[in-house]
Amino acid sequence: MTDKIKVGIVGYGTIGKRVADAVLLQEDMELIGVTARSYNYRMISAQAKNIPMYRWPEADELNGLKMEGEFDDLLQKSDIIVDCSPKPKGAENKEKYYIPKKKKAIYQGGEKAGVGDVSFTAQCNYKECVGKDHIRVVSCNTTGLCRTLNAIKSKYGIEAVHATMIRRGADPWDIRHGPINAIVPVLELPSHHGPDVKTVLKDMPIFTTALSVSSTLMHMHTVTVDCKETPDVDEVLKLFENTSRVRVVDNASKVRSTAEIMEFAKDLGRNRSDMPEIVVWKEAVGVTGNKLLYVQAIHQESDVVCENIDAIRAAMGFEDAEASIKKTNESLGIDFCKECTE
Amino acid sequence: MTDKIKVGIVGYGTIGKRVADAVLLQEDMELIGVTARSYNYRMISAQAKNIPMYRWPEADELNGLKMEGEFDDLLQKSDIIVDCSPKPKGAENKEKYYIPKKKKAIYQGGEKAGVGDVSFTAQCNYKECVGKDHIRVVSCNTTGLCRTLNAIKSKYGIEAVHATMIRRGADPWDIRHGPINAIVPVLELPSHHGPDVKTVLKDMPIFTTALSVSSTLMHMHTVTVDCKETPDVDEVLKLFENTSRVRVVDNASKVRSTAEIMEFAKDLGRNRSDMPEIVVWKEAVGVTGNKLLYVQAIHQESDVVCENIDAIRAAMGFEDAEASIKKTNESLGIDFCKECTE
Amino acid sequence: MTDKIKVGIVGYGTIGKRVADAVLLQEDMELIGVTARSYNYRMISAQAKNIPMYRWPEADELNGLKMEGEFDDLLQKSDIIVDCSPKPKGAENKEKYYIPKKKKAIYQGGEKAGVGDVSFTAQCNYKECVGKDHIRVVSCNTTGLCRTLNAIKSKYGIEAVHATMIRRGADPWDIRHGPINAIVPVLELPSHHGPDVKTVLKDMPIFTTALSVSSTLMHMHTVTVDCKETPDVDEVLKLFENTSRVRVVDNASKVRSTAEIMEFAKDLGRNRSDMPEIVVWKEAVGVTGNKLLYVQAIHQESDVVCENIDAIRAAMGFEDAEASIKKTNESLGIDFCKECTE
Amino acid sequence: MTDKIKVGIVGYGTIGKRVADAVLLQEDMELIGVTARSYNYRMISAQAKNIPMYRWPEADELNGLKMEGEFDDLLQKSDIIVDCSPKPKGAENKEKYYIPKKKKAIYQGGEKAGVGDVSFTAQCNYKECVGKDHIRVVSCNTTGLCRTLNAIKSKYGIEAVHATMIRRGADPWDIRHGPINAIVPVLELPSHHGPDVKTVLKDMPIFTTALSVSSTLMHMHTVTVDCKETPDVDEVLKLFENTSRVRVVDNASKVRSTAEIMEFAKDLGRNRSDMPEIVVWKEAVGVTGNKLLYVQAIHQESDVVCENIDAIRAAMGFEDAEASIKKTNESLGIDFCKECTE
Repeated sequence: MTDKIKVGIVGYGTIGKRVADAVLLQEDMELIGVTARSYNYRMISAQAKNIPMYRWPEADELNGLKMEGEFDDLLQKSDIIVDCSPKPKGAENKEKYYIPKKKKAIYQGGEKAGVGDVSFTAQCNYKECVGKDHIRVVSCNTTGLCRTLNAIKSKYGIEAVHATMIRRGADPWDIRHGPINAIVPVLELPSHHGPDVKTVLKDMPIFTTALSVSSTLMHMHTVTVDCKETPDVDEVLKLFENTSRVRVVDNASKVRSTAEIMEFAKDLGRNRSDMPEIVVWKEAVGVTGNKLLYVQAIHQESDVVCENIDAIRAAMGFEDAEASIKKTNESLGIDFCKECTE
Repeated sequence: MTDKIKVGIVGYGTIGKRVADAVLLQEDMELIGVTARSYNYRMISAQAKNIPMYRWPEADELNGLKMEGEFDDLLQKSDIIVDCSPKPKGAENKEKYYIPKKKKAIYQGGEKAGVGDVSFTAQCNYKECVGKDHIRVVSCNTTGLCRTLNAIKSKYGIEAVHATMIRRGADPWDIRHGPINAIVPVLELPSHHGPDVKTVLKDMPIFTTALSVSSTLMHMHTVTVDCKETPDVDEVLKLFENTSRVRVVDNASKVRSTAEIMEFAKDLGRNRSDMPEIVVWKEAVGVTGNKLLYVQAIHQESDVVCENIDAIRAAMGFEDAEASIKKTNESLGIDFCKECTE
Repeated sequence: MTDKIKVGIVGYGTIGKRVADAVLLQEDMELIGVTARSYNYRMISAQAKNIPMYRWPEADELNGLKMEGEFDDLLQKSDIIVDCSPKPKGAENKEKYYIPKKKKAIYQGGEKAGVGDVSFTAQCNYKECVGKDHIRVVSCNTTGLCRTLNAIKSKYGIEAVHATMIRRGADPWDIRHGPINAIVPVLELPSHHGPDVKTVLKDMPIFTTALSVSSTLMHMHTVTVDCKETPDVDEVLKLFENTSRVRVVDNASKVRSTAEIMEFAKDLGRNRSDMPEIVVWKEAVGVTGNKLLYVQAIHQESDVVCENIDAIRAAMGFEDAEASIKKTNESLGIDFCKECTE
Repeated sequence: MTDKIKVGIVGYGTIGKRVADAVLLQEDMELIGVTARSYNYRMISAQAKNIPMYRWPEADELNGLKMEGEFDDLLQKSDIIVDCSPKPKGAENKEKYYIPKKKKAIYQGGEKAGVGDVSFTAQCNYKECVGKDHIRVVSCNTTGLCRTLNAIKSKYGIEAVHATMIRRGADPWDIRHGPINAIVPVLELPSHHGPDVKTVLKDMPIFTTALSVSSTLMHMHTVTVDCKETPDVDEVLKLFENTSRVRVVDNASKVRSTAEIMEFAKDLGRNRSDMPEIVVWKEAVGVTGNKLLYVQAIHQESDVVCENIDAIRAAMGFEDAEASIKKTNESLGIDFCKECTE
């Protein structure tokens, strides 16, 4: 009991609240608490679930929410902080709090790569992150690309990748941002996702284009890979089925869109109706010559949550990547019923 | 144990799967099973959750799903059927199966009122439904109107009601239906919702207008009530707070839209991220003269689920409306954290 | 020729560019020019159409657009300014430029009512605006309510009005604002539209509720009027058909939504595919007791354009309201083919 | 006068009504008339614009629309028919009417390639279509791909193309189809667009992936071309600027999305607010090695209209491709103000 990892969470938003839920499910971790910056339904729910809250230094009026203490108390009691602040607050907090207090910390992918000693995707580079003090979990899109490209690279080798990222315009709860009725290309080439993949998969020759659409559910990627060896469709499907945190779905089971993926997550009884696995469509994997094409969907709110859990273990010196991934997956129900739809 | 109500569910779609989950949570009920008509992610999930499945007579290829038996077996083993088929299949099933087999049944609000001996909203007319063989739970919109109007009527009396129903164009999982970018009025006056309210609240003088918009989350109603006695805003808010299955939210807690209600449901840990309570906005309750105005949001997928549970008890002869509602609410977490946002 | 009204336009956005097009079509007006504040496709198009441009004092880099002169030149050459700046710039420009230079000006409805000596809807109160120096054309929604309520009031008298305004979340060109997938109520009662109607129709007992949806095309209103005399549906339809700048459409002609109205405007060959008439659905006019219900759609980008033209004439002392409305309508094709769909 | 080409149009929908407008603007063509199948706002508008209408054999009740004659009269009076029926009616009409009556006809891209003796994109293969009796104008997406790929091929040679087509889910007037909030991949590889390009550009090694999103305005393509010779970004931009019916836009002029393209079309005063040019973003053209990437937007309703006009001339034996394209462009204002935004 006494050697559980004591985790504090800074920023209780889309990612922070999910990481809190996930930490509570780990046998080797203890959730010390989360920071409270303002009064809203998220904090009300946290209180209803008895999650300890600590007042952030520049908090707004908290309207009667019950605080366990001040942020300094949270810092002191925690072995490690998972910083889930909106960019670029993570980097600011590092300088202001974590470095001076010599506290290990995990950061999110919105921060610049330099915030971490390493950038992290558990199944790609866990080992090089063991014992590091500052680890950056890459963004949802980058995580998705790393999971599938890492598998393909190890099997066929990769000459070049081009991915088009069709991004949801806003998160499900976000009523401010559009577009309502437009397709909005990112007017820079490559989009930042390509370079970001290289912070994890160092020599990946990837080029990305991005655009936003009027949806809130998931991102979608169409990926073209020039392989070194000729790939085979059935073999690629088998490869993805055997890759952790990747799920193959098909038309036969009526999973034909991001909307049906989200409904499937509800049906599976997932916490917050999340689908942390990267979802690949069986019918949309194709090969022409040495080029492999596939289409994948990314649940922006949840695919990095399990990565944060693994990153905590890596930072704290837990050396066995496989074991960490297995613990995390089992506790969160990840990969559950994966084979059902194959 | 032996006297648990044995429930069979026909139609495992949006409503059926939720009723199944809810039945599993009732101490006084046993879920015999659900029908399987085709292979899809819903049935895959049901199998993963060990819900017994029975083959529907005209089922499609079930692709290896494991069946517990045929539909006739389900009928025979069940005390009561909850029919969650799409309209007008419920009425057809009544004639073809439930009447001949002398089986009690609950129907959904898409069916014509005549399918039931009575139409049902637990907190409005439970008593008159006790012991009835065929009960129709009214639709999501009608249920929402009945819950709040019943409370207002008992307090102030009602001269006339006009409600505008702003409907979500399609369910969250439905990728076929629009509109993508339009507001679509229902070109008939009154819309069917007004008359449907009168199947529960017999003399309610209500007139409704409806339109569809490009959203999948919830319906919204703006309601104008000409009251017999002059209402008071604070008193009305108190009234709603004290009404079961109605939740008052406010701007202070940042619940400003249907999107944030759905996020709040996730944060509360609700099954399938549902919000079965009718949600009323504190700042959108107003009075001018004898007219009361309010705005409410309706979660089309879940507000009738608890009604189906209560309807089962009523049909089986359980006489205490209050006790049934309380059992149902507690098992499903309904009204949990209601006071939090007041 | 020499006595044409010389019109300058400040702000070449959604409204300004349409007023410029409309002024060019008036026999009794001359477009002196429009202001240029920044380089963009609107200004590029203005230049391609040979519309004279004058540099706004704090203009951004204009990137080679050809200027006819400075804003001061525009002010000096113009008899009257139509200020189409985003609020509250109109009021600021009044104090800074129009008052000091003793220049008459027309303002838009986003400005507070006090910016004008009067608020204006041509068919309601043209006469009281004749000769006024500062006239505010009310907003698109208020204009729509004034047009139809004025007709109803004159025929039946009005005891009370409640209108629900279902607003498009953003203009068609606006990619920044949402909601993408939500219904967002305005959390204040009444919404500002009710009081704004009273700036034109002084004693109108109106109460309004508003909400935003994921659409860019048009606003929609559901209106309930408690009339002093009992209305008749056919008579009301006749009344609307005989009201200028109101168009009755019906299901028979397949105009079933705001999307089809916009397509109809394209088919009619309207400039910029605009529909400046308020559109009422035949099948959505209903009567219950003394209550009249109707549903109308408002093209937010264009319904006030003709009002600005009439306001120019009123401000310049042209006394005949009917004649002004007729000139404006004929030049812009308003009410064209109105009878076609009856 | 007597030698104008007499054109009849079958199907007065999205494409048919635009081809009718375009034919009216050609000095060398005469619009004999269009078919009427049902009563709706399109036909009402046609009548208001004095376009002659001929009753389709199986027409619905036409509700008083004035007919110029029967379809047989239209057939007899016309030299050539442009068939704009929804697929697969064009092929049926060919067998039933055009072949028996020995009438030349133009078909749309929804029909199978075999309906035409040739498939057509004016700037790619006009010459091989001269004098042909049955010409199929390819679909909007295929037309867009042909225009830009033809230019690239002639300059750099092409080894392979992969295009992702992000399609609008429904036309602007279509309120029935979704998705409202999802990204929907086409679950077949390649999508039909790739093979369709090869009906015009015979040996193009192209592979396409497609998906649908919640937008009504335009399609968008992200295109990756493996070139034979290394391309240069500035040179490619120059190439596109010099390619007819292709328009380069940029961020500097604030054209950042499909929504702003549509607004730009309105500002340019285009008929029906159409943008028939394929729109390429300056900032989204990139080169990595021999790979060229670009992003283009396609106005599904209008890009093939000019192609239909040229196809009429080709079918009637007019030999000069350049001259036809020039006539068409000038009459429709295509390529107007193209250089403005470069």
